[in-house]
Amino acid sequence: MKFSPLVDELIQSLRCLPGIGPKSAQRMAFQLLERDRVAGTKLANTLAQAMLDVGHCQSCRTFTEDALCPICVSHKRGHANVLCVVETPADVLAIEAGGHFNGRYFVLLGHLSPLDGVGPEELGLNLLEKQLADGGISELILATNPTVEGDATAHFIADIARHYQVSVSRIAHGVPVGGELEYVDSTTLALSFNGRLPL
Amino acid sequence: MKFSPLVDELIQSLRCLPGIGPKSAQRMAFQLLERDRVAGTKLANTLAQAMLDVGHCQSCRTFTEDALCPICVSHKRGHANVLCVVETPADVLAIEAGGHFNGRYFVLLGHLSPLDGVGPEELGLNLLEKQLADGGISELILATNPTVEGDATAHFIADIARHYQVSVSRIAHGVPVGGELEYVDSTTLALSFNGRLPL
Ligand SMILES: [Zn+2]
Ligand SMILES: [Zn+2]
Repeated sequence: MKFSPLVDELIQSLRCLPGIGPKSAQRMAFQLLERDRVAGTKLANTLAQAMLDVGHCQSCRTFTEDALCPICVSHKRGHANVLCVVETPADVLAIEAGGHFNGRYFVLLGHLSPLDGVGPEELGLNLLEKQLADGGISELILATNPTVEGDATAHFIADIARHYQVSVSRIAHGVPVGGELEYVDSTTLALSFNGRLPL
Repeated sequence: MKFSPLVDELIQSLRCLPGIGPKSAQRMAFQLLERDRVAGTKLANTLAQAMLDVGHCQSCRTFTEDALCPICVSHKRGHANVLCVVETPADVLAIEAGGHFNGRYFVLLGHLSPLDGVGPEELGLNLLEKQLADGGISELILATNPTVEGDATAHFIADIARHYQVSVSRIAHGVPVGGELEYVDSTTLALSFNGRLPL
């Protein structure tokens, strides 16, 4: 025991947050106790409620406390029959920030990783296949990460989609706009050559 | 609104933690929602309880949910009449880790900083003076940080202590053991010359 039991327990509990070691947890605990009890109490309440109430969108699987997430219920998505498959809710945010995509999403919440016990079921691929079978989806854009696992997941989904009337594409990988060739890694460079387009 | 309201609120609430920006808060929220609901709920409960129940030790001012902290109630402190004044509970931990000090502490929870409205009262110096007046303290060791504010605070407390029968000292500042001279900053080096001891 380093401090009194409740203070110790608070520091220990804060370590469940990703990237927070013992020193940071201690700093957080003291800052909240010293200066921010109102914010700390608000965090406690919101966290308790979120852990209890937040589930998955029944359509796209992203996190939401409602049956459907704001994007899935929106009437402003002009290309609702185009489905973009991503790994995480943060990817949705990144694409939405771009503002160019106006379809819907399907969030895998991960990628295929048999060694970690993450198979098609964990990624909700049965739900995805049901949506393909139901019709109403004309195009599937696979925007999983350009990693070995992301690529494998994209190919796995493409194989499923082949059984349905839907066009399937993978987002392009290559030299980022504004990037300089000499600083781009060789794999990216190779992808940008393979994916070259006629001018 | 980026996600659904409760998810947004969770991400926003996590930003009350020191050093946590929007990206980290998002990562924390998703990690807790995805993999760690039990730990998240435990953190929520502990945090709520701590914000409500943790106060200050009536003797040393450190954080505790009891009237007195574990150190102040301990019967194993051989030099209970020696009081070491530090700025933060983390400083207590650092000194305790050394294992050489066996007296008690007084935790200022800050340093004098008139511009931020931190004066003698905010640092509990009336409580400290009461303890000096009550007797029972034979030595005061000032272990505030070797900063402008820490030094000013130490001198302010030393001036108070002069009215009582108590020996007052400031911890030594100098080259850390195992440190190499060439990497020590010039202020520390100057302090280590000023504080030189005969051999
Ligand atoms: Zn949705
Ligand atoms: Zn105490």
